[in-house]
Amino acid sequence: MKQYELERVLPEEIEKRSFEIITQELGEKKLEPENELVIKRVIHTSADFEYADNLIFSPHAVEIALKAIKEGVQIITDTNMGKAGINKAALKRLNCAVDCYMADEDVAEYAKKNETTRACASMDKASNLPKDCIFAIGNAPTALVRLYELIKEGKIRPRLIIGVPVGFVNVVQSKEMILSLEGIPYIVARGRKGGSNVAAAIVNALLYQV
Amino acid sequence: MKQYELERVLPEEIEKRSFEIITQELGEKKLEPENELVIKRVIHTSADFEYADNLIFSPHAVEIALKAIKEGVQIITDTNMGKAGINKAALKRLNCAVDCYMADEDVAEYAKKNETTRACASMDKASNLPKDCIFAIGNAPTALVRLYELIKEGKIRPRLIIGVPVGFVNVVQSKEMILSLEGIPYIVARGRKGGSNVAAAIVNALLYQV
Repeated sequence: MKQYELERVLPEEIEKRSFEIITQELGEKKLEPENELVIKRVIHTSADFEYADNLIFSPHAVEIALKAIKEGVQIITDTNMGKAGINKAALKRLNCAVDCYMADEDVAEYAKKNETTRACASMDKASNLPKDCIFAIGNAPTALVRLYELIKEGKIRPRLIIGVPVGFVNVVQSKEMILSLEGIPYIVARGRKGGSNVAAAIVNALLYQV
Repeated sequence: MKQYELERVLPEEIEKRSFEIITQELGEKKLEPENELVIKRVIHTSADFEYADNLIFSPHAVEIALKAIKEGVQIITDTNMGKAGINKAALKRLNCAVDCYMADEDVAEYAKKNETTRACASMDKASNLPKDCIFAIGNAPTALVRLYELIKEGKIRPRLIIGVPVGFVNVVQSKEMILSLEGIPYIVARGRKGGSNVAAAIVNALLYQV
């Protein structure tokens, strides 16, 4: 086969075919059935099989998240890119919503006044919401650290934390802080890897199961 | 050190510190000086050092791209997520613009009428633009295949193709098609890896150099 001979797959079957390839290449690797679709969708979005080992789920995190989605939960992201990657039709169908406060003027002002980052200020803003939310953090470790503090102070109680920032400074540590929490559901990509695309893929994998 | 002891880095110095860590971990690895900032920013955005080997640059692709940016080039992405990841302040400062046609009604209609995908139809729409563009394709291999066809038919002449779709079906092949082109500047992530985040990181790395 010439390397650029295209595989004939109908557009609407590409995703199914991709998941077949992922399943095949995972081979004998055992995935927790409850977590399987999330793990496979993250591999689908990254072509990176390391996520089969990196993704850490608190007990019944998926089940708890699906319940929150059925109740029309609000999802907070730390980037507009993460927000853009979440399937809007699925959100609408499920009566859920997604917000990102990073570019809000009041967040910029609050951050300046309190000498903090906009990522932290976004989490403070979310702590004032009337209902508990799902947080999908794919970029800012400072957002995860602030969530951890707000939880410890009893000011916020996330329905789920998707903790998948990517990078080199305080990323590993911020995720370990979330992993140390008890009683808060989480899905965390242990280590340096992650990203807004991974955060969005996890949200979509949850939405598609409802 | 407890694993969640945070490194003290000022918010405005996190990126600098991240690049220092990347440089340090690349060690003796030789990068083409012209391509170095693009490669390092992709690693910064993915925490994946495979990109030090995966990213293939046509001769002087970066130099040619910087010239296009100085002239206020239009950038076309294949996802709104990719568009969302491109630094809007940098675009504005440089008089450049970014568009994504995927969600346009005329694109949906054209795709339906011509029994093609919206990704292909987006490229057809871009081929009617009055000026040559930079394409940043992080998701749809069909968009890359259509670009290849339009180039071969003499209907489009991109200033640069950023060819970094991610995935398992026709992704590798579509990138090899772009790599086979002569006289068209490209930056391609060979293999399965890539993504809208990678496409946006490459655009930003170019913008920041002007």
